[in-house]
Amino acid sequence: MRQTKLFGKTRKDVSRDEKSTNAELLTKASFIEREIAGVYNYLPLGFKVYQKIEQIIREEMNKIDGQEMLMTALQSKEVWDATKRWDGLEEIMYQFRDNHGSEIGLATTHEEPITNIVKKHVESYKDLPIYLYQIQTKFRNERRVKSGIIRGREFEMKDLYSFHTSQSDLDKFYQIAHEAYLKIFKRLGLEAFSVEASGGDMSKEYSHEFMVKTEAGEDVTILCDKCAWAQNAEIAKIKKGDKCPKCGAKVTEAKTVEAGNIFRLGNKYSSSMGLQFTDQDGKKKDVIMGSYGIGLGRAMGTIVEASHDKDGIIWTKTTTPYHIHLLNFAKNVKKQARVEKIYNDLNKAGFEVLYDDRDISFGKKLKDADLIGICFQLIVNETKEDLELVFRADHKKVMGDYQTILKSIKEFYK
Amino acid sequence: MRQTKLFGKTRKDVSRDEKSTNAELLTKASFIEREIAGVYNYLPLGFKVYQKIEQIIREEMNKIDGQEMLMTALQSKEVWDATKRWDGLEEIMYQFRDNHGSEIGLATTHEEPITNIVKKHVESYKDLPIYLYQIQTKFRNERRVKSGIIRGREFEMKDLYSFHTSQSDLDKFYQIAHEAYLKIFKRLGLEAFSVEASGGDMSKEYSHEFMVKTEAGEDVTILCDKCAWAQNAEIAKIKKGDKCPKCGAKVTEAKTVEAGNIFRLGNKYSSSMGLQFTDQDGKKKDVIMGSYGIGLGRAMGTIVEASHDKDGIIWTKTTTPYHIHLLNFAKNVKKQARVEKIYNDLNKAGFEVLYDDRDISFGKKLKDADLIGICFQLIVNETKEDLELVFRADHKKVMGDYQTILKSIKEFYK
Repeated sequence: MRQTKLFGKTRKDVSRDEKSTNAELLTKASFIEREIAGVYNYLPLGFKVYQKIEQIIREEMNKIDGQEMLMTALQSKEVWDATKRWDGLEEIMYQFRDNHGSEIGLATTHEEPITNIVKKHVESYKDLPIYLYQIQTKFRNERRVKSGIIRGREFEMKDLYSFHTSQSDLDKFYQIAHEAYLKIFKRLGLEAFSVEASGGDMSKEYSHEFMVKTEAGEDVTILCDKCAWAQNAEIAKIKKGDKCPKCGAKVTEAKTVEAGNIFRLGNKYSSSMGLQFTDQDGKKKDVIMGSYGIGLGRAMGTIVEASHDKDGIIWTKTTTPYHIHLLNFAKNVKKQARVEKIYNDLNKAGFEVLYDDRDISFGKKLKDADLIGICFQLIVNETKEDLELVFRADHKKVMGDYQTILKSIKEFYK
Repeated sequence: MRQTKLFGKTRKDVSRDEKSTNAELLTKASFIEREIAGVYNYLPLGFKVYQKIEQIIREEMNKIDGQEMLMTALQSKEVWDATKRWDGLEEIMYQFRDNHGSEIGLATTHEEPITNIVKKHVESYKDLPIYLYQIQTKFRNERRVKSGIIRGREFEMKDLYSFHTSQSDLDKFYQIAHEAYLKIFKRLGLEAFSVEASGGDMSKEYSHEFMVKTEAGEDVTILCDKCAWAQNAEIAKIKKGDKCPKCGAKVTEAKTVEAGNIFRLGNKYSSSMGLQFTDQDGKKKDVIMGSYGIGLGRAMGTIVEASHDKDGIIWTKTTTPYHIHLLNFAKNVKKQARVEKIYNDLNKAGFEVLYDDRDISFGKKLKDADLIGICFQLIVNETKEDLELVFRADHKKVMGDYQTILKSIKEFYK
């Protein structure tokens, strides 16, 4: 992609309303553009990152036999009345009336709708287990929005729901989903760890949150570095400096962002909504459920919070919008042709290249490249025959001919 | 995919509220599930078709240099006040207040928001032209919904917006987009043709609608079979039996569904919202715009309307949820192993296979296969060594060994 063609310009300043590092950097680098408070558009650069995150999540959900579907944002009051959540969600759910006077809500989550749909298609134990997921837009009427794309009023989320004949079958899948989540975050380049959290009113057992350490975190986690025990401070009965209940070492405390969560729902929804199946013994029983969420924008924002420096974003290997930022420092026409050839060759080699072909100063190009944060900057200089490959994370340089450089890039992305 | 694992059961009857053929068949075959009137969930089978349609549209948009992004459903009143459309859209736009008392609307279209975003990134003629698109959820507070997924209150749409320095540059791109649209419909297997329609209040020139003939159509098109002249009856000054203004032959009339549309917007939005650029002569000028829409659910519903028979849906080559519906008619254990091998071999050969491994009667399997409408049914029979390949569209059969059958399938999908 030639940067002269790319829509979206970097900017120096952003609105003072952007209090979060992620929104500030992503806006400056033209990945996102704010529509209203807590509601962001993804510009082409941002959408490329978004698609990469989406693809990783989709692949891992398919691997654990998740079946993708697409549910609706518009919801009738009736479905949410069965669990008595319509009134409870009033503060956070956009609720209004349609042209017929019917009460409509914008889904903040989909336990009720999915339970209702599954009711129409599940009869017997033979129809279970089932794992259904979607990647879809959620809405939350948040009062305070100060975390950029980490907590928005409109956001894309992957939500998976599982349906089982027994608690033990749920437990088995819960572990599988737990592993899939760790895999997703690892693939995204996020150092996430699993933290025990409240199971809510649905379960005596813990649910799990996947946390990433960052100063921007809205959560506090009590954790033990020795044995990896970790609990959300909200439920932890111990505090920083106390002894770990598992290994006895002293626990510490960290600010964390919740990048995902998994819940055992048990029969909370199936029981109140009448989702039952006929078991092998001919008896009707409640379906046992679990739910598993990851926010896509939240993942993107968390990566930025966890991986940036004073100059800008540092994308991870799998989420970098392009593999290489090709910076043309040549003004001489002959050298220009050389840059064009490198651009074409890299594309042919299967790499995604953002080619800064703009007629601006070298300094501005370097500054923008650091801000945008693509993993590699490849500089074609007028005075040097060798190419210069700069690793964005630490600005370490490698000089060499095209083949040498290509080898380094291939090694990194393999 | 084993059908015993697939979520979604076929059903014989659907709600009497489903007046349209597309919603009736898609619901019976478990592609969709209605949430509320005019609002449909896509179940796994339906989502597979949806993804194929999405991919074709995305590829053709990228080919004409469209840059993908993602805008928001939530909109503030302010942005839509600039063009005075907030009040005008009141009847069709869901409008409500958020927790802060601010007026919020759910976007029915995105001319205002995209113009506002482009304003922040375009300064000079050097920044133009730009082509931006998204595939995103739109909402319309429709009073009457009777066309299934062809006209819903919540629907996914691809909307492209183009930005130019001049009318002639817009006209050039308008032709390119026109061709891309015909290509998309051709690839989808839809016989769509371009029809002149009102340019609205923005233009004296015609806009174009892409129509597909079907009894379910909400539009009437006056058309000439001889020279391909066609106009929406709403603007046509002639009627059925009159002489074609282009070639003099008698024109006919057809009920049609609008599968897409393209508009020259001119400076309607840029002028009222102040989207200007500095031209080569240093003068500020209005940016000239175009917009181009295709509904994804609408395309899917139109395919069903245009391609079905009394037994069910007949998917087109590129939109069939699976390439092959493998029907196991063998009960003998040895033959069972043979079906499993065929299933694995077809998967390895790169085909998407829905394998009906359910323990139900042959008759029910055949009936479901016809209803679901996958292009090929491959029958493994207990008493015959040869396989039986049935073409869903006309039920023509080919008998042969695995290699012969594979050749036929490959030939069709190549």
